[in-house]
This record gives sequence, C-alpha cells and structure tokens, in this order.
Amino acid sequence: MAKYVYFFGPKGTEGNASERNLLGGKGANLAEMCLLGLPVPAGFTISTECCTEYFKLGGNFPKSLAAEVAEALKKTEAAMGMKYGDADNPLLVSSRSGARSSMPGMMETVLNVGLCTKTIPGLVKKSGNERFVYDAYRRLITMYSDVVMEKAEGIEPAEGQGIRVQLEKIMHEHKKSKGVTEDTDLTVDDLKKLCNEYKAKIKQVLGREFPDDAMEQLDGAIGAVFKSWNGKRAVSYRRIEGIPDDWGTAVNVQSMVFGNMGDDSATGVAFSRNPATGENKFYGEWLVNAQGEDVVAGIRTPSPLNEETKNDQNRHLQSLETEWPELYKELHDIRDKLESHYTDMQDIEFTIQDKRLYMLQCRSGKRTGTAALNMAMDMLAEGLIDEETVVTRVGASQLDELLHPLVDPAAEKTAEVVAKGLPAGPGGACAQIVFTSTEAVKWANAGKKVLLVREETNPEDVEGMRAAEGILTARGGMTSHAALVARGWGKCCIVGASELQIDVAAGTMRVGKEMFKQGDYLTLNGTKGLAYKGQLAMIDATENPRFQKFMEIVDKYRTMGVRTNADTPEDATVARGYGAEGIGLFRTEHMFYGEGSEEALFQLRKMILSSTDEERQAGIDGLAPFVKKDIKATIEAMDTLPVTIRLLDPPLHEFAPSTVEGQKEMAKALGTTVEEIEKRVEALHEVNPMMGHRGVRLGITYPTLTEMQIRAIFESMKELKAEGKNPKPEIMVPVTCAVNELNVTKKIYDRVKAEVDPSLDVPYGTMIEIPRACLLADKMAETAEFFSFGTNDLTQMGFGFSRDDIGGFLNEYIQQGILEADPFQTIDQAGIGQLIQMAVEKGRATCGKLKIGICGEQGGDPASVEFCFKNGLNYVSCSPYRVPIARLAAAQAAIAAKKS
Amino acid sequence: MAKYVYFFGPKGTEGNASERNLLGGKGANLAEMCLLGLPVPAGFTISTECCTEYFKLGGNFPKSLAAEVAEALKKTEAAMGMKYGDADNPLLVSSRSGARSSMPGMMETVLNVGLCTKTIPGLVKKSGNERFVYDAYRRLITMYSDVVMEKAEGIEPAEGQGIRVQLEKIMHEHKKSKGVTEDTDLTVDDLKKLCNEYKAKIKQVLGREFPDDAMEQLDGAIGAVFKSWNGKRAVSYRRIEGIPDDWGTAVNVQSMVFGNMGDDSATGVAFSRNPATGENKFYGEWLVNAQGEDVVAGIRTPSPLNEETKNDQNRHLQSLETEWPELYKELHDIRDKLESHYTDMQDIEFTIQDKRLYMLQCRSGKRTGTAALNMAMDMLAEGLIDEETVVTRVGASQLDELLHPLVDPAAEKTAEVVAKGLPAGPGGACAQIVFTSTEAVKWANAGKKVLLVREETNPEDVEGMRAAEGILTARGGMTSHAALVARGWGKCCIVGASELQIDVAAGTMRVGKEMFKQGDYLTLNGTKGLAYKGQLAMIDATENPRFQKFMEIVDKYRTMGVRTNADTPEDATVARGYGAEGIGLFRTEHMFYGEGSEEALFQLRKMILSSTDEERQAGIDGLAPFVKKDIKATIEAMDTLPVTIRLLDPPLHEFAPSTVEGQKEMAKALGTTVEEIEKRVEALHEVNPMMGHRGVRLGITYPTLTEMQIRAIFESMKELKAEGKNPKPEIMVPVTCAVNELNVTKKIYDRVKAEVDPSLDVPYGTMIEIPRACLLADKMAETAEFFSFGTNDLTQMGFGFSRDDIGGFLNEYIQQGILEADPFQTIDQAGIGQLIQMAVEKGRATCGKLKIGICGEQGGDPASVEFCFKNGLNYVSCSPYRVPIARLAAAQAAIAAKKS
Repeated sequence: MAKYVYFFGPKGTEGNASERNLLGGKGANLAEMCLLGLPVPAGFTISTECCTEYFKLGGNFPKSLAAEVAEALKKTEAAMGMKYGDADNPLLVSSRSGARSSMPGMMETVLNVGLCTKTIPGLVKKSGNERFVYDAYRRLITMYSDVVMEKAEGIEPAEGQGIRVQLEKIMHEHKKSKGVTEDTDLTVDDLKKLCNEYKAKIKQVLGREFPDDAMEQLDGAIGAVFKSWNGKRAVSYRRIEGIPDDWGTAVNVQSMVFGNMGDDSATGVAFSRNPATGENKFYGEWLVNAQGEDVVAGIRTPSPLNEETKNDQNRHLQSLETEWPELYKELHDIRDKLESHYTDMQDIEFTIQDKRLYMLQCRSGKRTGTAALNMAMDMLAEGLIDEETVVTRVGASQLDELLHPLVDPAAEKTAEVVAKGLPAGPGGACAQIVFTSTEAVKWANAGKKVLLVREETNPEDVEGMRAAEGILTARGGMTSHAALVARGWGKCCIVGASELQIDVAAGTMRVGKEMFKQGDYLTLNGTKGLAYKGQLAMIDATENPRFQKFMEIVDKYRTMGVRTNADTPEDATVARGYGAEGIGLFRTEHMFYGEGSEEALFQLRKMILSSTDEERQAGIDGLAPFVKKDIKATIEAMDTLPVTIRLLDPPLHEFAPSTVEGQKEMAKALGTTVEEIEKRVEALHEVNPMMGHRGVRLGITYPTLTEMQIRAIFESMKELKAEGKNPKPEIMVPVTCAVNELNVTKKIYDRVKAEVDPSLDVPYGTMIEIPRACLLADKMAETAEFFSFGTNDLTQMGFGFSRDDIGGFLNEYIQQGILEADPFQTIDQAGIGQLIQMAVEKGRATCGKLKIGICGEQGGDPASVEFCFKNGLNYVSCSPYRVPIARLAAAQAAIAAKKS
Repeated sequence: MAKYVYFFGPKGTEGNASERNLLGGKGANLAEMCLLGLPVPAGFTISTECCTEYFKLGGNFPKSLAAEVAEALKKTEAAMGMKYGDADNPLLVSSRSGARSSMPGMMETVLNVGLCTKTIPGLVKKSGNERFVYDAYRRLITMYSDVVMEKAEGIEPAEGQGIRVQLEKIMHEHKKSKGVTEDTDLTVDDLKKLCNEYKAKIKQVLGREFPDDAMEQLDGAIGAVFKSWNGKRAVSYRRIEGIPDDWGTAVNVQSMVFGNMGDDSATGVAFSRNPATGENKFYGEWLVNAQGEDVVAGIRTPSPLNEETKNDQNRHLQSLETEWPELYKELHDIRDKLESHYTDMQDIEFTIQDKRLYMLQCRSGKRTGTAALNMAMDMLAEGLIDEETVVTRVGASQLDELLHPLVDPAAEKTAEVVAKGLPAGPGGACAQIVFTSTEAVKWANAGKKVLLVREETNPEDVEGMRAAEGILTARGGMTSHAALVARGWGKCCIVGASELQIDVAAGTMRVGKEMFKQGDYLTLNGTKGLAYKGQLAMIDATENPRFQKFMEIVDKYRTMGVRTNADTPEDATVARGYGAEGIGLFRTEHMFYGEGSEEALFQLRKMILSSTDEERQAGIDGLAPFVKKDIKATIEAMDTLPVTIRLLDPPLHEFAPSTVEGQKEMAKALGTTVEEIEKRVEALHEVNPMMGHRGVRLGITYPTLTEMQIRAIFESMKELKAEGKNPKPEIMVPVTCAVNELNVTKKIYDRVKAEVDPSLDVPYGTMIEIPRACLLADKMAETAEFFSFGTNDLTQMGFGFSRDDIGGFLNEYIQQGILEADPFQTIDQAGIGQLIQMAVEKGRATCGKLKIGICGEQGGDPASVEFCFKNGLNYVSCSPYRVPIARLAAAQAAIAAKKS
C-alpha cells in the first residue's frame, strides 16, 4: 500500500529536501529544516501522489489516508505538546499547498483549522487573549467558507456575490454602524457577534452549516487544497509556466503559530541576499502582530529586517535588528546555516510568537537576472559553488532580462518623476498605461505595449502582468504578489508607489494634481523604483563586466555552436559582439524591404512582372549587382566565420506592387499598360502562399535567378579572398521536399563554381522545413552537405497552423490545455521534435558527419536549445539579441547531460 | 564479370520469357519463341544491366562488351548461314530497343545495319534485286544519320533542320525533277544517286562521314538505342506511365529478314484475339512487299489477315488467308501455340521473306477495357485461366474505360455523321477539336475538353493524346501508332478517317464541303468508328452483364473494404449501385453549396457574421434543422451501411458573402450596416486559409456548433431506429493535430449522447490529415475509435504544396523528373507513405483493432489502393465512379500478396 503522509518535526522527520517531486517544494524543505534542527512547528505533508490518486478517485481520498493522517497528527501533537480538537489544550493547524515548483498565490490555504465551539475556550484560556481567538475564528470562518465551502465545491457565484465578499460586507457595515474604520477597532463582542452573523450568512447563501467539528474542518481543508490544483488560476498559471497538469500538489498540515497574538508576536519574510540586486546582505520585511498574509498582501507597509537594508519607503520604521536584537541574531544564524547548507540564496518565512522564533518556510529565492548573475559570481568567489553551478544558476529568462533595455540615464536626468516606489523588478519599460488585467491582455493582443497600473495585484492579475511590459502598483512591499511575480518573469516592476490614486472605473490615475488616463505613456525605471512621465529613451544593459566574465565561463562548458540569423552587415556586427560564431541564416530577400531598397525592389519587380523570358532575364541581370553588393558586405562583416546564405525564399507576389502608383511605375518601365500590370500582379496571387510558388520552387522554374544568386556568392568570395580576407559563405536551398530539387540546383552550382573559380569551397546545403524533407532526409543528405532546420515552416506544416492565421484559435488552445505551449515559441518536442529527430538520424545515416543546425525562431528558446543539443545538432542560430541566451542554454544542456 | 549478351536462335538460346527485367520484354519473348521452336531470325540481346552500366560509364560501353558481342555474332552467323560484314554472303541486322515494359515508338530502331560498300555487291548477288538493296541502303542512311549521328549525339537542330528532313527534301526534289510521286517509281540509278547525295549532305551538315564499316555501324546502332532511353520523348512517356528512370532498356540485335524483297515477301502485325472487342478471332493486318514500319506508320492501308475479320475499310483487299493459305495456316498454328503457352492474347509481328515466315516479336497485346473484360471471361470459360487470373487480367484503367461514357444510341440515330474511320479505341467522347499536340495540352490545362485531330500521330504527339478526351486521325490502321497508344490508355480513338482534310497551319479541317475550325465540337463513337457533328448526349456504360459477373469474381478475392465519398442521398444511391460498402466521407458543408442551399447558407452566414454570442447561437439554432434533415436523408439512403459524417471542415470565410448584395442582405438580417458586415467579412479573411481556422479548430472555438451537429446525428439515428431502420452513422473530427482536440470534442459527444439516447452506438473517430496527427497517432488512438486518412491535406502539408497554387511549378517538377508523379493523383509512397505507415503502426500499437480507412482522392487510385492494402487499412473510400476500380485494385493487391 502506498504511503501518503510524511511527518516532520524535531524528531522522526520522514522526508528531506531531495523529495520535492513527492512532497512538493514546501514540504521537502520543511522536512530538511527539521533535519537541520531549526525551529519548525511540527506537522505532516500529504504527498503529490495522494493528490493524483485523489483526482483519479473522482475527488475522494484514498481509503488508507484517514489512518495515516491520524497517526501523523498524533506525532504532531506529541511534538507540540498540544492536542488537535482538544477542549483544554487545543492544537490548531494550517493546510497549505506545495507543488514541485513554486506557484505563488495560485492555490489555496486555510489557517486556524481546528477552531470550533469546543476548542475556543481552551485557546482563550491558553492565550489569555480572547480578542485574538475570536479574530482568528473570524478569519477561519471567512477563509474556510470561501475556499472549502464555495470554491472547492465548484460554486461560481456572480461577480461580487462570492461568500467572502458578502462576509466582508457584514464586517464593513458593522464597522460603519460603530463608526470605526480599522479591524483593530472592533471589540471582542463585536467579533463574537460577527462570527455568528457570518455563520448565519453562510447557512443562508451556501445552504450548509459552517462545520463545528475539528476533524471535519481538517478533511475539508485538505481536500480544498487538492482541488485548488485544478482551480482556474492555477491552471492558467501552469499554462504560462509550462508546468504539467499531472504533477499535482502536496498538502502541508502544520501546527499554527501566531504572529498576531499580540505585540510580542510578529511575522516576516526574508531573503538571505538581496533578490533584486544580488547584494550579499540579509534582506527582509516584518510586521508586528500580524499573520504572514498581511506581509505578502501588501496592505500594511512592512518594516525592514535590519539597518543596512533600510530604504526611503521604510526608513522611518523600526528594524527587527534594533527591536529584538536576539531574535534577529537567531534568525541571522539560521540564514547563514541555510545558505551554506543549500549553497543558494534562500527565501524564508518566519513567525515570532510570544518572542519565540519559528521557521515556516525556506526555499530557493526568486531573483532578478542581475541578482542571479551577481549572486552566482559572488558565490563562486566565496568558494560556495563551482563554475558549473554558476552556469546553472542564471536562468535563460534571467539572462534575457539582463539583455533588456534600461532607461537611458541621460534622459532620466531631465525627466519628470511621476511617482516613487519600491524597485521590485529591475530594468526599464516605456509603454501606455492600462488599469485592468483584461485591458492589458487586450491591448497586448492588439500589438500595443502596455504598463499595468494597479492599486495592488492579486493572482487574478497574472495574465495581465504577463502581457504587460512593466507593472506599477500603489501598494505592497518587495515581497508582495506583484513583486514576486514580476521578478519571476524578469519584468520591470515598481510597487508601493503610494502617491498614485487609481480610479479603475473612470480609467484614470491621479498623482497630486496631475491626471493620467488609459493610454498615456509612462516610463518605468524598475531598478530605481521611479516612474517618469512620457516616453524616455532606452539603452542596452549588456556592459556589465560580470556579464562578460559569466559568459566566458558559460562558453567553457558549451559544446554546441551558436550562430545568428542576420540579414545586414550591421546585424552581423551586433551578433558578433554577442558572441555569435557565424550566421546561420542570411535572408537574401531582406534587401527588398524597407528604406534604401527601392532600386533593388524595382529590378526585382521588373523580373517578377516580365511577360517574356528576355524581360525576365533583363530583370535578373539588373538585380545582380544589388544582390552581390549585399552578400559581399555581409560575408565581409563576418570574415573568418561561416555565413549561411539562403537563396530567395518568399513567394514573388509579396514583392509585386499593390498600389496603383507602383503599378504605373512598372507599366512604364516594362512599356505596357497599367491594366496589363494589374493583371500580371493578380496572376501572381496565391490562395495559400505559404505553400505556394516559393523557395527552391522559384529556382526550379527560373533557373537563371538561382544562377545569379550563386554567382554573386562565388564572385564575392573570390574578390574578398583576393583582398586577403577569409570569407566563408555557405549556400542554403530553402523549402526543399525532394533530393532532386537539390540535384537540379546543384548542377547550376557546379557550373558557376567551375566558371568563377573551381578552388573555392562553398558548402552546399538545405533548409529542412518541409515535413517530407524530414521523412526523406537520408536522400536529402546524398546531395546536401549540411541541414538547417527551419522550424517556423516545419511547425506551420507539421501542425497545419498558418502563423498569420492562428490568432483565431491558438489562445483558446493554450487556455483549454489542448496544447501546452505555443509551438512557434518553443519546439513542439512531442510532434515536430519527432520530425527533427528522424531527419537527424536519417541524414547522419547517409553521411555520418553531416553538419546540422537550426535557424527557426525557436533557436533562441532555451528548451528548444536543449532539445537541439540532445539531438546532436552542431549549432543553433537565433536573432542577435538571443545569442547569449542560446549560449547559456547550450552550456546548461551540456552540463545537465554530463551530470545525468 | 557480369554477363551482358544473351544469344537467341534455333539452338543455344540463353534467355527465356521470365527474364524481362534483364532482357526487356522483346528480348525475353524472342528467346521464349526460340525455345518454343518458332521460326525466329537469330540474334542476341544486350541486357538492361549493360544499359545502366553504359550510363554509369558516361556513355561508354563496358570493356567486356565487345568480346561478348563478337561471340554472339558468330553464333548468329552460324544459325543464319551468313556472315556479318562479308562481301559474298553478308548478314544484315537490326538494332532495336526493348524495355521491361513496352514503350511503343518512344525509343530508336536502326534497320539494315551492316550494309556498306563492301557488302552491297554480295547482297545484290544473293537477292538478285539491286533495286531492293539500294532502297535498303537509302533507308539505312536515313535512319542511321538521324538516330545515331544526330539524335544520339545530342544535336538539337532547329525545327525542320534535322538531317532526316533534309534528306527527305533531297528525295522529294529528286522525285519532283523526275515528275514522279511514289518512292516505288524511282529506279536503281535514282536510288544510287540519292544514296551518294545523302552521304554528301550528311558530311556537310553533321561534319562526319557516314560510316562505311559494318562493325562501326553496329557499335553506333547499339549505343544509339541505349541513348534513346534518355531521349526527350522516352523520358516524357516514362513520367506519364510512372516507369522508373533506372530500369534502362535492352538492345536486341537481330538478323534482318525482308518483307520488302519483292512480291513474295510481306510483313504483318496480328493479335491472337480482337484487341478492341476481345472477340476470339485471329485478327491482324499485312502488307505485301513492305517493311514492318510501313504497317505501323499507317501510310498504306493494310490488308486483313483473314476473311472473317474484314471490315468496311479493307473489305476490298486480299486477305493472307486467301492469298497464301499455307503461310496463313502456319501463322494460325503459331497463334494457337503462343496463346496456349502464354495463356493470354498475344500481339505478334511477322515477316514473310520469299514465302518463308519469320516471327519478329510476340508480346502480351494491349487491349481496350471491353476486350480485356471479354477475353478474361472467355478464357475463364475456355479453362485457359483461373478466377484469380481473371481478376488480374483487367487493369484498373481498363475498368475505368468501361465506366466511361458512351454516346447515347438514341442521340446517334439522328446525328450527322462527319466522318467514318476505324474503331481503334472504344467509348465515346464529346469535345472541342484542336489540330496540334501543343494546343491540346494548352487547352486541357485551361480546363477545356479537347479532341486531338491529326493527319496521323507520331511519338511527338503523346502528350497531346494524353491530354485529349479522344483522338481522330485521317490515316493509319488498327495497329497504327494512334490506335496502339489510345488503346493503352483506354481512350476513345478513331483512325483512318480518310475524308478528313486537315490544314494545321490554318487551324481548319474540311470534310467534303463542310469546314470545321479549331474549337468546334465533335462527338466520337470510338466503338463504331463514327465522328458526329456537334455535341451528342452521352450515357453510362456499366450495364454489361459480364461486367457485373466480373465484379462478383473480383469481390470474391477482395479482403479490404471499399466505401465512397458522398455528400447527398443521390450520390449515396449511385455509389451503392457501384458496390460501395458505406460512406467513408460525408462532407456536411456540401449543403451550403449550389442550388437549393440558399436558406441553409443564410443561417450559416448569420452565425458567421454574428457579433455576439447570442447572435451566433441564434445562427446555429437556425442552422440545426437543415443539418439534421441533410444528415438523416443520407444515413437513411445508406441504411444498414456505415456513414462517416465529418464535422464542419472549411474555414468560415469561404461562406461569407463577398458581393455587396449578399452583404446587404446580411446587414438587414443582423440589424447592422453594410459597412459593419464588410468589416466582419474582412476580419474573417485568412492569409493561408488551408492552415487557418478550420476543422476541429472551429469546434473548439464554437463548441455549440459542434454540439448542434452531433445532436443532429444522434437525433436522426434515434428517429430512423424508431422507424425500424438500421442507420449506422459515425462521427469524424477533421483537421486534428492533438488528442486533446478529440478529448474536448468527445465531452460534447458524451453529453449529447447521454441526453438523446445513451444506447445509441456511434463510433467516434478522426481524420488523420495533419502530419503531426501521424506523428502522435498513438495518442490520437487513445480517444479515436477509428482513423481516416485525409491524404489531400496530408499531401498538401507534407509537401508544403497548396493544391490551389501548384500550377506555377508542379508541371515543371514532373517534366524535370524532380517528382515521379503528381502526389495528389497517387499517394507519394516514399514520403507521405511513411507518415501513413507510421500512423497505422502507432495507432494499432495503442489499439490493436483500430479501424483505419482513407478518404482522400487517392482512395480511387489503383497504386494507392494497393499501398493501403499493404499497410493493413480496413477500407478505402473514393468517389462513386471510382468504387469499382478501387474494388478491383483491392482484389488485385490481395491476390498479389497471396502469391508473393
């Protein structure tokens, strides 16, 4: 029979930190802290396996669970010297979720479980604080009715009709009738009365009594946590984070300790180092006479832990260090112990009850990219971790954040500060403000950049936060919801900018006398906590010398190559700066887009719109000098490094003039009528251009077009060599589905090479971007000297998803969990991955040393980079700004492979 | 060392009929006839392997070949009692191609090889016919210079500048100067003079002497035949027939016998039964004092073999039976011997030299569909072949021909006959006339139906013949080029309609006083040999009782099911008549197309153009009765047989009103402006609709649309059952790429089923038409109860070929041999076939009994049917008219599998 329950306490702890898959992160670390001898209130963890079983049983506990819980509860009672449900010496417990991977605020928690008619008097006697007990009872009733009796039962009340809101209304009216504003102004009698009214309301609204039996409360609280794994918010968060649905959550039932038992009690959250900057200083916040949720919710501005980390927002408040020096020292020692034990920055929750310190949680702390980099390099210097660990300590998205723009300091000097807040997520963001998550998503989907401005954020806001460039809140501290989530995603974020007066309904925000409305521009400096009016200039953030040093270490452990997709000498130069080892994709067609392209485009149009072979050839001849100039400049910029030049790829219709003016110009150039040109443009139109006359198909039907391009490449190379350069162009044929396409084109290659200079060595390869090319990769490799996966098209055709048209359904697919992720962002390993694997195997079966790369946009996605590494690719190629991320992901994949 | 040369003769023959891959069809049968003791002029076959080697060596003979040829030549000389290149008793030989599979007229032949200054006197003495010898020499020079010295050298002269044309011009002028019109009017001196002028012209044009050495002539003639394998015509023919390029041709070097040695000589072609009707009568044509090419070329109208097969065109001519009864009897005995030996109708070439009969060729004869069917059934009755052989004797394309339309006899009664000719290819055709192959192809590509009308056809015309509905020639007999090719393809064809006066340059045709021009309509009755003016009504040709009996035998050996793709009760009824065992694809969207669809389309548009959920639901509700009525009628028509109903598939934009009028109507219906409707229509537009918002994707975003369809199916079934019927609907979800799409839709299915009647059994399956669905077929099979391959889309996405847009390049791909066939006609087994195989294996790994079918258009293509059989599919589904063909192909595949 499976074991589901694992006790933790001063002795007899059954789990440890390595068992996070079974016990969840929180449970595993509670057990580990117990093993380290830290003061953890005893309790037990119900495993994730039990959660899975619970859903399998249609929302029922496995039969064996009750006995295991009873036994663990007994051990807990013994450790705490109290008894659950006892009239005289009652033990209260909390029931908290804890998945493998942290999902802050996404699942449910019930506190003060076990408080009922029978146990209240005992607790009053024991605590000597009747008000505290009834306040705890009120909190239990509110939380329990909301989480266990409503949400877990699948009841979906109309907006504002939820039981929690209705109970809060009662409280609000009570306060109003008494003429008070703060909860703390309520007397014991008020609270008693409230509790009774609450219970009556619950009966009326939910049709059930609030349970007055301790064991019934416990069962309900455990089940509700399990159920919250499939709550809407949790599911939505898992989609974004790519967490599988079948992991499940553990439930941690832990003895309650109270930070809100009076002025000798407190609660706090701390980081062993600064999570925003990485600075090696103990950093945290605490609140006297409060429960943990008060700190995280950001309703009261918390006090600093110590003197050295005070800031402008909390300088006036008393630090724990000065208030209770001994307790601070005890906590600081624990911090040291945890850091040297885990060899990583820890995020700690603690509670002080009657001046006694309890540890409620420790876990590896979320951090900004800057912090991750700085901590890793510091810890390397401190001898705490080795180089390989350094490489794994900075996540790809954190590195991404480091590469994100900053507000230009020069621009900041003269800018008008709108508001000051806490620097919760560093970096800069400049965008239009919106006041709801819904608007943020809507605007972002419409292609606009937005800043989400909120009074404070809650888990309902996660999608809006995801969609926004940056987040600005009026309330909350550095460990508030907004701050945690933003840092996790590497988003620019300012919290606690208390001057903001937000009117969501009106869509406005007032700061002092100034009024801002939805759509107005602000610029945030998340590193300083400053919000500026209007749009400020932004700059790059890559000049950090530690970043350079870090990337050197990364490259030491990396075995797979990293190239870039670049179309101009400028891009090529940028990418070289970022460490690109060549160009994996040079798109010859870029020269026809944008400014300065007019003349080349004119020649191309002449070719496209020709009506005879002679006219077409004249167009191609006219085009030749442009193509050559362009190719030559880029391979020169990449001198000594390989440049994979893709032959012309897009359907010609893309370049045809669509305006009357453009058509007039071409009519004149070709000596015909506008009507005729219009007709020719129309004839080029395709129903599904993505699967039309493009890529190598153009080269097959217009072989002289191919010849012109290939000649430009050979001639450029020859000329550069004559200048003493070392150019390394490679020729890549796009959109192939049959080896004969390569053979036909190769004949042109061979002839041109013989004509220009037979000694020039230009590798001849192909994109693998059509499913059939993967299926016949063994044949393709008979002629191709290298493969480069075009995962954009491969994904389009493998899924039958047109990138241009997925707007109508892809979101729905992600939301409903039909697909786990957008396959254009990250390689669909289950499906498209099979095609890639097949092509690698087949290609290498024909030619063992076949060079294989990837140049689709997923080439810069860390999971995709790892996939490429595992499948033995020689290199990935991505946009210039993703090059460092790909280098890191490749190094991490190599280290992971070495370790496993 | 490989053996390349195989001798055949009265004794010591080295090959036999089973070696056609090695010796080619002609060579293998020459050897077999020798083994049967028939009078075959001795010779030898150079194998197809030698041809392959020849190309590998860059157009050079393998070193060992010369010695082998010398040895075989010695044996040949011994058998014939003559000596090659000898001055006194010279042997002449022919060099002919012979591939595995007959390619009539596509490759080259050189006759009279070995005739030169040295051997001429000896032959003159031996034959006693100087005129014959110089005529033979003239023919050799013409043929050799054309085939060996020009074509085989890759020389491509301008139109009308070829050496053959130039030599013919000399002859023409010579005749003109002498005032004669026939070749036979030329004297020995004329011919001698001509030969000299020919040789001078050759020297002048080609820069080389005509070779006067017998061995040099032989080498040249062998090499030229090999080279003709890669001639333009042969390659083009192979593309059409799907013959692989690497098969190669054999070369048959055979002792010459002369049908043109005088009036005791003759040549002929015969079929052991009538190749047009199948009638069991010896059927053929012969010409006194002629070479074989004269019969085939159709320049002289040949005589009939015997009395019983005389027809209106040759009734006045003397039959072989009456002219030379003994020779006729000898030939008739050989005919009987060959038929009982090969147990199949034989196509025979013979020559009579000095009243002695020689067999030059025998092979299985090409025949019309009607003939194939009749012969097979006759031979079964005669005990010559068994039932399995009967099934294999009718090709799928021959059956197709049987299913082709005939001219309505009622319409024929009153129709105006334009011309009479020989009934070379049966069936009817009604189309517009064109006079060149080029025009035929052009018109056909433009979607028009054409009849190719020619003086006579030659191998250059094959593509035009292929493109035409029917062929009409002014000259030639039943064994002429046009007749042979047309019968091979099952095309309606009339030859020898000598009243026609065709002016290709003017694009006109005169018959008596009547003038026809390009584009005029004619109707051909190829069974009777009559051409009618204008467009006559056509009828079906399936009422032949032998056809019914044949199909019964076919079904006895068939193991795979055959269904039909049908969208209406009418189609369903037709398909049932053709033997369909169910509907494999019922497209629910058909109801929105064409006449009578207005109201359903209006409701659909209301849904499509709705701006709110309520409006959309109203549209769906309005649609429901139409959908139900349609589904119910079709499953009723197919009562007791399964009907696979595909949920709505096409992108909605297809149905949106594009005209202002249509948009006005919808604006009124939805109470909004035309501008607004226009905007909504525009919003539905997709860049690549084939990969857009369609199929199951519609069902995911509009679940109530899915629900409405599923409900209509269950309700129809329930109602029909209540009426005592046995309806068998199946639900098929299109365009799936992930099992979760099926799971989400299945929830709706389950709910609706529970609501309507939980006892109803409706299999729930999916199209497999997206590459990813194949890759993840194991997952798909977790929910799908059946698969049906949608090979149209699978081919589109697997190749990245949009069917709507391949016009720009697919022809070029086939022409250049990049692809062997149009993958939309026949499954691309090498590529798409892998996906199918994978999906079958993976699907059955999850569910061993998974039912799998195919409903793409290739379901009616014989090669694809065989592929499906080999891969273990349960059924194929095709258009109603292809059902008998699919049944036959499936039976043939089963028999082939049993035999191998």
